[in-house]
Amino acid sequence: MEIRSYRGKLALKEYEAVVRDFHGHLAPGVLMGGFMVDWALEVMEPCQILDALVETRKCLPDAVQILTKCTIGNGWLRILDQGKLSLILYDKETMHGARVCLDPQRLCQFPLIRAWAMKERSKKENPLDPLIEEMMHAGRRIFGCQEVVVDKIPGALPAYSNPKICPICHEPFRYGTHGICVSCADPFFHAKDL
Amino acid sequence: MEIRSYRGKLALKEYEAVVRDFHGHLAPGVLMGGFMVDWALEVMEPCQILDALVETRKCLPDAVQILTKCTIGNGWLRILDQGKLSLILYDKETMHGARVCLDPQRLCQFPLIRAWAMKERSKKENPLDPLIEEMMHAGRRIFGCQEVVVDKIPGALPAYSNPKICPICHEPFRYGTHGICVSCADPFFHAKDL
Repeated sequence: MEIRSYRGKLALKEYEAVVRDFHGHLAPGVLMGGFMVDWALEVMEPCQILDALVETRKCLPDAVQILTKCTIGNGWLRILDQGKLSLILYDKETMHGARVCLDPQRLCQFPLIRAWAMKERSKKENPLDPLIEEMMHAGRRIFGCQEVVVDKIPGALPAYSNPKICPICHEPFRYGTHGICVSCADPFFHAKDL
Repeated sequence: MEIRSYRGKLALKEYEAVVRDFHGHLAPGVLMGGFMVDWALEVMEPCQILDALVETRKCLPDAVQILTKCTIGNGWLRILDQGKLSLILYDKETMHGARVCLDPQRLCQFPLIRAWAMKERSKKENPLDPLIEEMMHAGRRIFGCQEVVVDKIPGALPAYSNPKICPICHEPFRYGTHGICVSCADPFFHAKDL
């Protein structure tokens, strides 16, 4: 089994190794994300310049960061934080894309994945190794794939102004309220031993 | 010059190569981020298990994802979206950390970096090559570093409930309002050719 990436195809074992290195361990959501990105890239071929929209903050964004050119820091990956195991890869010129999402109706053959996805059991009651094995066996069969048109980019981000110096901390900032930075408006740290 | 990472030290050239591969190009913010993470890791040594808080969504999060174990998908990296070239690496047990932030007073010797950081000139008026060269020369000298205690984690994220099935799209979701998912509450895509 192979996983498509912007660098070409990765053997599943290679993908697993990169996931362990980047994400820290072979998390079920990042493994599933591999099958999801693979399917979306297949639908979008040969288009290489894609933006990504991931519908959960947990795990899945890392599959996108590993397999596509989209990262949280370069702005091509956006997160819509609603806890859905779904993602869209789309062409930002045409806004046409492929959306891959978990299909609960397809989970009936895969009881461990169902228990994991629907949080029917605790992690202790649904140990990782058999779960991962069932995921490897299921591959993309638990997902649906739609061709979609993205009508607008969801999840508004603060508009950055040109940098101003905060009158309280004297640091430059680009988003705040009442002329002060977010950190000074609602402090979250203090200097040690001062 | 070397850059600390959780894997050990990287030669600056090696870091540049990883930045180009992961982020797509050698962006000034990711280059600067290398010097910032290096300093924060130096202060926090030998502690290896650190969480990260980055105070801008632009570029800098990728330096953290490359050099530490913190990623947006594993939850160890959090973004406080206020457009500050600042980051904190902290021990989540003790909440003690190192904060590295741009110090505008130290920019007077570095006019190209100052023009870039304060957006005094357009990208065209401040071409990349001399800017990068000045950054390589400046290294960490444009930053300040504080030892801090993180009192609370800023930037609330939606609390995820156990998955529910959305009555409109029939997909599982973990955060929404009035019992429907965010996508159905405010649709942002439509299926193609339907």
